[in-house]
Amino acid sequence: MSEFDEAIALQRMGTDGESTAWRGRLSDRWSVGTAVNGGLLMALAANAVRDAVAEAGEGAHRDPIALSAHFMSAAAPGDLDVTTEVLRRGRRMSTGQAALVQDGEDGPVERMRALVTVADLEPDGTVHRCEPAPDMPAPDACVPSSAAPAELAGAFTLTERLDVRFDPETVGFAVGAPSGRGELRAWMRLADGREFDSVALLLALDALPPVAFDLGLMGWAPTIEFSGHVWARPAPGWLRMRTRTQTLVGGVMEEVAWIWDSRDRLVAQSRQMCGVRVPKDGLPVSA
Amino acid sequence: MSEFDEAIALQRMGTDGESTAWRGRLSDRWSVGTAVNGGLLMALAANAVRDAVAEAGEGAHRDPIALSAHFMSAAAPGDLDVTTEVLRRGRRMSTGQAALVQDGEDGPVERMRALVTVADLEPDGTVHRCEPAPDMPAPDACVPSSAAPAELAGAFTLTERLDVRFDPETVGFAVGAPSGRGELRAWMRLADGREFDSVALLLALDALPPVAFDLGLMGWAPTIEFSGHVWARPAPGWLRMRTRTQTLVGGVMEEVAWIWDSRDRLVAQSRQMCGVRVPKDGLPVSA
Repeated sequence: MSEFDEAIALQRMGTDGESTAWRGRLSDRWSVGTAVNGGLLMALAANAVRDAVAEAGEGAHRDPIALSAHFMSAAAPGDLDVTTEVLRRGRRMSTGQAALVQDGEDGPVERMRALVTVADLEPDGTVHRCEPAPDMPAPDACVPSSAAPAELAGAFTLTERLDVRFDPETVGFAVGAPSGRGELRAWMRLADGREFDSVALLLALDALPPVAFDLGLMGWAPTIEFSGHVWARPAPGWLRMRTRTQTLVGGVMEEVAWIWDSRDRLVAQSRQMCGVRVPKDGLPVSA
Repeated sequence: MSEFDEAIALQRMGTDGESTAWRGRLSDRWSVGTAVNGGLLMALAANAVRDAVAEAGEGAHRDPIALSAHFMSAAAPGDLDVTTEVLRRGRRMSTGQAALVQDGEDGPVERMRALVTVADLEPDGTVHRCEPAPDMPAPDACVPSSAAPAELAGAFTLTERLDVRFDPETVGFAVGAPSGRGELRAWMRLADGREFDSVALLLALDALPPVAFDLGLMGWAPTIEFSGHVWARPAPGWLRMRTRTQTLVGGVMEEVAWIWDSRDRLVAQSRQMCGVRVPKDGLPVSA
């Protein structure tokens, strides 16, 4: 079993009508600082919802096509309780919900709630329109995340689970020279060689450093709301990613992500609202 | 009371812990064909969540800043049951959920489930980065929705609630000559003169015709998932809107929307996944 499949595995505790209780354990191997990466939580939630739909209904609906999540508190390594509820079981798609809860000092604390619509993606649905994949140097000509300064990499066990190669044009943040354009581009694989599928794409969508880094904002950028769309099952091999921000108001910003697979096919997109800390005198860097 | 406030009003039926039951009635005055407009449902859901948060907690948190909704079946004029649940009550923001249910032939049917994060928007949060408002002819030089051919307008009572003025460059769809660019631009006001606030912006984000019309796809484009972000309370006066699609795969597309207020300030953005019917031989029109 790959380390990703292990990380999203849950044990079914019991079912009551459309509601199912699950238990799991978050390891300290997918962390960003002291928090477990939100992409991992979303993949785990989507996996639980598709299992709940598949075991209860007729259609399999193995692919999450749309996931929306609101993050309420930072998840920490440790025990995790998940409750799923199947909301609609349809012929072409089904929808469910997942609530992720951990024990806090004063009782249970909800970390994230997600709505997930699942379906069966056509292997080769016609692409009528899509954003083209960006031109980038080949992975071997890019900057590996393993080259990150120890003080950046140390707090991020997530980076050890992924093989990320940054486009040299967008990796200035790592050496104190962000471009100010608000854009990152990178290749991505899972470090243990497991190929991405529609569930693992949800991890990938939220697994690059915050795009705020490219504006010189190097702090944590906690996700408030996240919406991810999966357009196709990815072909094996490297994913190509691009993230960008165009909106930053007060201490809140948007971050948009695109993922193309090794066939240069657009396979997933997302948009999130996250918090950032902007210095009183404005952005440190602008393009 | 404005017709919008009347349309989103609910009666509180009872509270059990963090869960509150509400009843309302959807009129036939906000319809697109036989279905009630999704934007109205989202505004209604956000209003219920902020009322549930305000009555139960300390902070008011009067502005929905992020709403995510999954649409499961088309809502029809008639009675509506809403259940809200407050998930997190925070100092700076709170999060709740709303489930909208109507009676179907075989019992209750869920129409939409939404997650809503509410906060208090700063009156003048600094805009560090944002998409600029598009250049458009003044409202009086644009094409009013009241000029729509009767066969288009007749099925849409929603159009009578709104004063919409289309940029002449993007209104070709109304006369059988869509541009193929996948973009619409328009001014918008509520017909009865009520000014937009942060809740009414959620209606506006989903109240223009489908952007698919500009690709020659004139059918219904039912929303699967919708994610809306509100950046600021709008100033009184006309809203300026732009919608665009860049992704259309198989029978599913994305639609992105931006709204600027009369100060040219970006006040809201959204991205939705919706279904479309593409002819077997491809898009009827491309730019």
